[in-house]
Amino acid sequence: MSSVVAELDESVNYTPVQRMRHSAAHVMAEAVLEIFPDAKLAIGPAIEDGFYYDFDLPRNLTPEDLPDIERRMRRIIAGKYPFVRDRWPREQALEYFRAQGQDYKVELIENLPDAEVGIYTQDTFLDLCRGPHVQNTGQIGPVKLMKIAGAYWRGDEHRPMLQRIYGTAWFTQEELDQYLWRLEEAQKRDHRKLGRELKLFVLSDEVPAGVPLFLPNGEMLRYLMETYVRETQERYGYQHVWTSHLGKVKLYKTSKHWYNYRENMFPIMQGEQEASEDEAYVLKPMNCPHHFTLYKSQMHSYRELPVRYAEFATLYRYEKAGTLTGLARVRSLTQDDAHVMLRKDQIQEEFNRAIDLTLEVFNTYGLTDYWISLSLRDPHKKEDYAGSDEVWEMAESALREAVNNKGIKYREMIGEAAFYGPKTDFMVKDALGRDWQCSTVQLDFVQPINFELEYIGEDGQPHRPVIIHRAVTGSTERFMAMLIEHYAGAFPVWLAPVQAMVIPIADRHNEYAHSVQVALKAAGVRADVDTRSERMNAKVRDAQMQKLPYMLVVGDREAADNAVSVRLRTNENLGATPLDAFIERITNIVKSKSREL
Amino acid sequence: MSSVVAELDESVNYTPVQRMRHSAAHVMAEAVLEIFPDAKLAIGPAIEDGFYYDFDLPRNLTPEDLPDIERRMRRIIAGKYPFVRDRWPREQALEYFRAQGQDYKVELIENLPDAEVGIYTQDTFLDLCRGPHVQNTGQIGPVKLMKIAGAYWRGDEHRPMLQRIYGTAWFTQEELDQYLWRLEEAQKRDHRKLGRELKLFVLSDEVPAGVPLFLPNGEMLRYLMETYVRETQERYGYQHVWTSHLGKVKLYKTSKHWYNYRENMFPIMQGEQEASEDEAYVLKPMNCPHHFTLYKSQMHSYRELPVRYAEFATLYRYEKAGTLTGLARVRSLTQDDAHVMLRKDQIQEEFNRAIDLTLEVFNTYGLTDYWISLSLRDPHKKEDYAGSDEVWEMAESALREAVNNKGIKYREMIGEAAFYGPKTDFMVKDALGRDWQCSTVQLDFVQPINFELEYIGEDGQPHRPVIIHRAVTGSTERFMAMLIEHYAGAFPVWLAPVQAMVIPIADRHNEYAHSVQVALKAAGVRADVDTRSERMNAKVRDAQMQKLPYMLVVGDREAADNAVSVRLRTNENLGATPLDAFIERITNIVKSKSREL
Repeated sequence: MSSVVAELDESVNYTPVQRMRHSAAHVMAEAVLEIFPDAKLAIGPAIEDGFYYDFDLPRNLTPEDLPDIERRMRRIIAGKYPFVRDRWPREQALEYFRAQGQDYKVELIENLPDAEVGIYTQDTFLDLCRGPHVQNTGQIGPVKLMKIAGAYWRGDEHRPMLQRIYGTAWFTQEELDQYLWRLEEAQKRDHRKLGRELKLFVLSDEVPAGVPLFLPNGEMLRYLMETYVRETQERYGYQHVWTSHLGKVKLYKTSKHWYNYRENMFPIMQGEQEASEDEAYVLKPMNCPHHFTLYKSQMHSYRELPVRYAEFATLYRYEKAGTLTGLARVRSLTQDDAHVMLRKDQIQEEFNRAIDLTLEVFNTYGLTDYWISLSLRDPHKKEDYAGSDEVWEMAESALREAVNNKGIKYREMIGEAAFYGPKTDFMVKDALGRDWQCSTVQLDFVQPINFELEYIGEDGQPHRPVIIHRAVTGSTERFMAMLIEHYAGAFPVWLAPVQAMVIPIADRHNEYAHSVQVALKAAGVRADVDTRSERMNAKVRDAQMQKLPYMLVVGDREAADNAVSVRLRTNENLGATPLDAFIERITNIVKSKSREL
Repeated sequence: MSSVVAELDESVNYTPVQRMRHSAAHVMAEAVLEIFPDAKLAIGPAIEDGFYYDFDLPRNLTPEDLPDIERRMRRIIAGKYPFVRDRWPREQALEYFRAQGQDYKVELIENLPDAEVGIYTQDTFLDLCRGPHVQNTGQIGPVKLMKIAGAYWRGDEHRPMLQRIYGTAWFTQEELDQYLWRLEEAQKRDHRKLGRELKLFVLSDEVPAGVPLFLPNGEMLRYLMETYVRETQERYGYQHVWTSHLGKVKLYKTSKHWYNYRENMFPIMQGEQEASEDEAYVLKPMNCPHHFTLYKSQMHSYRELPVRYAEFATLYRYEKAGTLTGLARVRSLTQDDAHVMLRKDQIQEEFNRAIDLTLEVFNTYGLTDYWISLSLRDPHKKEDYAGSDEVWEMAESALREAVNNKGIKYREMIGEAAFYGPKTDFMVKDALGRDWQCSTVQLDFVQPINFELEYIGEDGQPHRPVIIHRAVTGSTERFMAMLIEHYAGAFPVWLAPVQAMVIPIADRHNEYAHSVQVALKAAGVRADVDTRSERMNAKVRDAQMQKLPYMLVVGDREAADNAVSVRLRTNENLGATPLDAFIERITNIVKSKSREL
């Protein structure tokens, strides 16, 4: 069944707001037909946050057309015309739409298997539709048309290009205003835009697409993020390892990535020194095979377990060029990855530890709205999963219990587990309420077998450990994309690449300004001095544009008193402050990682 | 001319000790002829720290033969036989050696262009030789034969395999003893051996040869080394950047590495998404092209310069498999690399800054014996070098002056400069007196042209900057190899991956031991607890074998007093110490980065 027909089918599951938006699409189609009586109509479903309708029109629409269409829609809405449902025999419908010249509707009906088709009418407009709709057009809330785009009929580039009008509709004006603000805000916060403005990273054609290059500000941000997770991981008993960026093909044959993950791996390197494909090199898309190799290089006793290997390794994945987006989807991703080798009796405790670590990190970043997706096996298809029934039951109930005990919202996704073990994904909401998938905790009963991993048990015999794959923030790049948008570039003081700009009022204050910088640096504060020959206000404005937490203005009085006049990026003016007091203030804020200024 | 003849030629430049060793080789040949009258002789030069002679013998030598040869040599030395020099017409020499069946000597003479050849005789032994020699065998100091090895005649695998005996000789017994001790010590300190014993790194066949994998101890060492250099670089005004591990072929065409350095680059990756060779990917062997790309992405004013980009990036160089050695020669090397874009008038100051930074780092590591090799252009071949005469003169005198002002030993290497600029290399002596090349400071007048780098001058016009390529410790891997051998694995406290092992006397002290560990960790001390069911002394011994700085033994008394009994890895016993006092001690030592315990 084509996706278009599928969309029509799914419409029966519309939520109330989707039903209202779908009705708005019909109203928009009526308005467009008023302007273009010869318009041919394709489909008009509700989508996330709105709706669209695809038209075949005698001329190209321009943004100037939208207010006219909107005006006509408002008139139809005000008319409170009922949506009348009917069912026509298939042949009658075909005949009707053929007579109207509505070729796309005809094609849709031809592809429907049913003997009868749904017809909805409001005011002067009749459409092929399964519904459901609101009762009358008066129940459609405030509407706004957003943009015009091209779209191939049925998404097929060999079929006609249609014109798609996107609109949004909400139950109240307040909701609409909120939505438009969020949209505008999301645009302002777009990490690609802020990345450029705040000099965080650049994309260059000299390196592969999807491999961002980090300028000093961006590198500092990476470094602070990774150092923070590193220190936290150390506190939680993780050890860090380093395993380069290369493996041999045979390594990925052992792990089976070569068979299951190859399309995401970079092309292999086979030089004159490598005789066979097995010996050829390939950029590593995963750390696991390397960590297992390290684990295997040493003897391990049951007493040592869990062995927790963590690594901030840049992984290379050959994503399709068309899917790459700034830092959010890249080909070089630096995971805060870890692999824990543990005994079966340690699953729940270790899982708890991974959750605690993750939540601590989220809280530090001010990310307090999250839920867990708990992927379990399909109990009716036990044969599709590796590992014994007993281990699965024990592992799944350990995971469920751990999540329950923490009181975290979670959803069980039956049948979503990988064949090698159950897992949890953390979904985090940012300041605009958008979900980002970050952390994963994944149990694995299969790789220990592939790599023949062992530990010596209390009985002196070799036993097979279980593996936990785990990432806290996911990848530095993607998490940074989220943080940039979450904070709108105004990073908490501890994360700000430059924390303070010292601004001399006149050239004669440059020397004092530099001495302030020296004192700040000695205290571990990342401070610059702006000695450009600009006016003081311009310098303050520029520093604010760069979203630096503090601007420290220094002139005669400040120099005499060993003080700084503190301006915040919020524009608040704290006035003259002894330098020592400012250092104490910022040091405490950094130490607590709070979002205060 | 073949290398064998070249060796004979060079013998005329022998230093006194080389002359003595070369004479010892003749004496060894006489001794061997006594045992094997039919032995055929090849060549016997002096080499670093000793000498060898290659023989064609009727049977294979065994180590048991060496004492007999040594005994005969001592007798010949005691005989004080004079070395008598003669010159024979070429034909006479050919005839003589032919008659003796000395085929290798005959071949040597046939390859000599001279009408006369040198002949040296001592006691019963006559040899083809340019000399010079000592006056008589009594002037040969204490001798020791070291080992037997196979060696192809003329190093050609298609010619006969000869037996080579290596020996050493010194002017005094003390020097010989010293040398043998250094050899033994170097073996004990071998970083490959210690790397295994101290669980620092492993070499695996699952990843490319020359790509070591770092276990937790080794990763911690890397991290501490790199963090220290990073912090120091920040203090010296460097900014860090991040530029991945990949470039495109066209990037290396711009930098000319593609033409000049290709044999050291990994095979390219060309997937279905890369249409041409220019667009194909390749692992980066150098950071410079990436740093220039970053520099170019932004506008720069003369006021901002020098712009200093530093990066701890793992570089990949496709070294020949046969040359790879532990961490000392690898294919994955993490340089503490930086590129400084500066104005010509800033060369001397910037060069001074690089030297100061380097010396500060060396001093911290207790490396106080170093000299600088200053590579200058050949003033008679100015046309071979890029950049104006004026810039070269200015740059070379700036470098010379800077080195002079610091009072560092240096050697001028005329004609050793790269065509694109003069440079300095730092040669560091380790605890065994061996030279390691670490830091480099290299001026570059050419890459700014290749990459069309610019800054806006005070005149508002674009100008071309000069580049300094610079590394402090060279690469983390190689410097770590040196540090392991320099410290013999007994790292200073600040660098020790595990700083203290808490050792409970009995199981009932485990709880207190863990509370000590918690207190130490909270103070930033890297501490483990040894709860194995071994005896206390065995645990202390194991920790000493691991060269941990401190063993903290805890029993009833320590638990009662909140104390630890401190044992050092030197075996010194500091006795019971309040835990607070120990924490203060170690914290101060770490802070000062001293080598005390």
